[in-house]
Amino acid sequence: MSQEQGITPRAKDFSAWYNDAVMRAELADYSPVRGCMVIRPNGYAIWELMQQALDRMFKDTGHRNAYFPLLIPQSFLEKEAEHVEGFAPEVAVVTRAGGKELDEPLVLRPTSETIIYDSFAKWIHSYRDLPLLINQWANIVRWEMRTRLFLRTTEFLWQEGHTAHVDEADAEREARKMLAVYRRFAEEWMAMPVLTGVKTDSEKFAGALRTYAVEALMQDNKSIQAGTTHNLGQNFAKAFGVQYQTAEGGLDFVWNTSWGVSTRLIGGLVMTHGDDVGIICPPRLAPVQVVVVPIYKSDTERSAVSEVTEEAVRVLRGAGLRVELDAREGMKPGAKYYEWEGQGVPLRLEVGPKDVAKGQVFAARRTGGKSPIPLAELADGVRRALDEIQAGLYRAAQERREANSRRGVSRDELVAMMAGPGGFAYGGFCGRLECEVAIKDATKATVRVLPDEEFRSPTPPATCVWCGSPSVVEAVWAKAY
Amino acid sequence: MSQEQGITPRAKDFSAWYNDAVMRAELADYSPVRGCMVIRPNGYAIWELMQQALDRMFKDTGHRNAYFPLLIPQSFLEKEAEHVEGFAPEVAVVTRAGGKELDEPLVLRPTSETIIYDSFAKWIHSYRDLPLLINQWANIVRWEMRTRLFLRTTEFLWQEGHTAHVDEADAEREARKMLAVYRRFAEEWMAMPVLTGVKTDSEKFAGALRTYAVEALMQDNKSIQAGTTHNLGQNFAKAFGVQYQTAEGGLDFVWNTSWGVSTRLIGGLVMTHGDDVGIICPPRLAPVQVVVVPIYKSDTERSAVSEVTEEAVRVLRGAGLRVELDAREGMKPGAKYYEWEGQGVPLRLEVGPKDVAKGQVFAARRTGGKSPIPLAELADGVRRALDEIQAGLYRAAQERREANSRRGVSRDELVAMMAGPGGFAYGGFCGRLECEVAIKDATKATVRVLPDEEFRSPTPPATCVWCGSPSVVEAVWAKAY
Repeated sequence: MSQEQGITPRAKDFSAWYNDAVMRAELADYSPVRGCMVIRPNGYAIWELMQQALDRMFKDTGHRNAYFPLLIPQSFLEKEAEHVEGFAPEVAVVTRAGGKELDEPLVLRPTSETIIYDSFAKWIHSYRDLPLLINQWANIVRWEMRTRLFLRTTEFLWQEGHTAHVDEADAEREARKMLAVYRRFAEEWMAMPVLTGVKTDSEKFAGALRTYAVEALMQDNKSIQAGTTHNLGQNFAKAFGVQYQTAEGGLDFVWNTSWGVSTRLIGGLVMTHGDDVGIICPPRLAPVQVVVVPIYKSDTERSAVSEVTEEAVRVLRGAGLRVELDAREGMKPGAKYYEWEGQGVPLRLEVGPKDVAKGQVFAARRTGGKSPIPLAELADGVRRALDEIQAGLYRAAQERREANSRRGVSRDELVAMMAGPGGFAYGGFCGRLECEVAIKDATKATVRVLPDEEFRSPTPPATCVWCGSPSVVEAVWAKAY
Repeated sequence: MSQEQGITPRAKDFSAWYNDAVMRAELADYSPVRGCMVIRPNGYAIWELMQQALDRMFKDTGHRNAYFPLLIPQSFLEKEAEHVEGFAPEVAVVTRAGGKELDEPLVLRPTSETIIYDSFAKWIHSYRDLPLLINQWANIVRWEMRTRLFLRTTEFLWQEGHTAHVDEADAEREARKMLAVYRRFAEEWMAMPVLTGVKTDSEKFAGALRTYAVEALMQDNKSIQAGTTHNLGQNFAKAFGVQYQTAEGGLDFVWNTSWGVSTRLIGGLVMTHGDDVGIICPPRLAPVQVVVVPIYKSDTERSAVSEVTEEAVRVLRGAGLRVELDAREGMKPGAKYYEWEGQGVPLRLEVGPKDVAKGQVFAARRTGGKSPIPLAELADGVRRALDEIQAGLYRAAQERREANSRRGVSRDELVAMMAGPGGFAYGGFCGRLECEVAIKDATKATVRVLPDEEFRSPTPPATCVWCGSPSVVEAVWAKAY
């Protein structure tokens, strides 16, 4: 779309808005390879900030990074029955290399449990080697039928944690701990509120004992699974012979966990905060937090204004902020504003002759609102503004989620909600696969999580929202990406 | 090998020493996939430090990171004639995906010129879009026949810079600038002296106009190509239609450069600095720069010593150093020393009761030498020691290289040198492919570079080292990895 056209309004077509917003911000581009995307510098810069924050959290919880092969022998996938059933249909297979047919085809990793636990079997000998806490940053390939930039692509970037533990309790603690890390990242960095909870058996990871997830409600009232952690039990340990000598001298299989988030998070960020102008970056993940734009008409004005803008940039960079000075010649301020707004830069500082005279800059928030900041307290004032924008984005997203969540829904309400506005529907669940399937068939909604305690309704629902038999657990339904 | 065995001495079998040193330091491991390695946490931590330093240098020179697809349509490779000839024999090919045969096979990127310049063609319209300065951190697959951990593996990690410029001069400046960046990284971070220069046509990148390289001499007197930069001319621009409107209103093809270094650098680091105990990490790239080991016999001693070691760790971490405290119980200090030495940790601080009494720690350098550091000036003393180790490693490597370089070699000397000790042989070169091939056949040595001015001999050689006809350029020959 051209600068004049703007982007499709959300209310008109959310899906078109999403594509327009991503393209306008130059976060990504389509590629000539089916379902693969190009992550452009503006998008990759957000990913780098996400990686830095997450990597710090992973290291602070004792994990170390490593790297395992992209190529996995097809036979490895087949060693865990549920795993191969889940992933075999969507793998890409290398059958030829170095000019020859391969004896055994190699699949491009759709996830790395098998190739990693094969190494774990070599590295782990005794309980003293446990827990083993590894993380990998890597690219992943899954042959998807319907793809969307960031949300679902044939190739994507992610991190996958892989750990081994002496017993179920320790593996469970790890799966829970990393779920809490993902929640904290979503809330504190992405300004994206999430529900946490456990998945039903039909939604869990292929090969896991239990899968936990963080789920966030997008502006179109569909849910995005933003991260998952899995207690894998001893399934893979048995398939790959990952045994250790116990403290008592016996031999036992380890308990594994795995957990991951991906470039999909960028899609979640866009759909949580964007508006009809385009994306809005939460300040903590904004590659450019502040753009400074000089405004002048004459050369005299320009020189006075430039002195202030250059000093402002120096001061703000010195304070550790990510700042750009847009001093491009021959471009009107309005055109500059338009460009930076489309990139979601949270704060714009305008400096004109009047501001220079008053010893201030004029701060325009991407989330709305303008106010002056005195030059004498520039760094503090800007930091405060960014903090307020970050907090405001979170609050707005949380209020939107609450406004679009309904508790104790009846069968008719669930159907009406999913046929209409969507959102998070809390209701009783008998726990039977039949009801899960029937609900999905009737409403396209799935159980996003069986929510953790703090998200549950004060009064537990008495009956299953679908079959009316006694409820054994509360569930949250939504349509999902 | 077990702790008792130690590792193969370099003088006995350098190649076995290399493998032992890498395994002992737990930098990497073999994988079940032909030619692929697992980069273990100790090795990956070095790579992360390399990435951080290089990434900062790339950004400081105006480059931005992006990410392009792993999978490249086979037809793309074929658009540039030399390129496909160079890479087609070693590609791995995906022929099946999502349960179906693909219409067009996809190759795993052996390098990304083709897929990246396809995007450049969409993004570049006018001279105002130039230069376009992009870098990508990615995994690469090349089907190699003979593989060695880090040095040559089927899959490896690297960065590839890709840029587009208005004219040849600007592309040439970029290729030269990034060569200087690689040189600075090798010297200042890896403590590895390098020669810089241009490659002969037979050694240049498939599809390039000119290839520049940094070359380093390993302890077995073989050279490693540690990084290359390419002026690609307009070859790819013409193949992919990357055109721009000139300032004068005409239409022209851009000039491209590409440049890369890979996890191979870790192999270079090992072979530059290692000794018969194992690897030695230059302090600036050491994941652990300092290990602190408490020494005590009684509980009373332990408590006094621990107080000092814990405080020392706090102080050193506060000073921004990467420090580990090895307070493992039930393990003798000697066994700890052995383990950390094998990991190449440059500085070990031993703290026993006598040191506590004297208000000092005892600093043992991985490069040899022990001396006390007063606790009162701990951070400064440690920093000084690390700086000296870094400088000493560089000096030693430089002296070794000079001792193993010969200038103005005759034909007989070249043959004798390559049959015997190896090293860098400087000599005259007529520039003809026949001589290059004959020398390679006779000595296994190749022209590593036509050295840049500052590396050339004071008096230019008069005749070609091989055919005796007039020399047109000085060349440096060596056997190479």
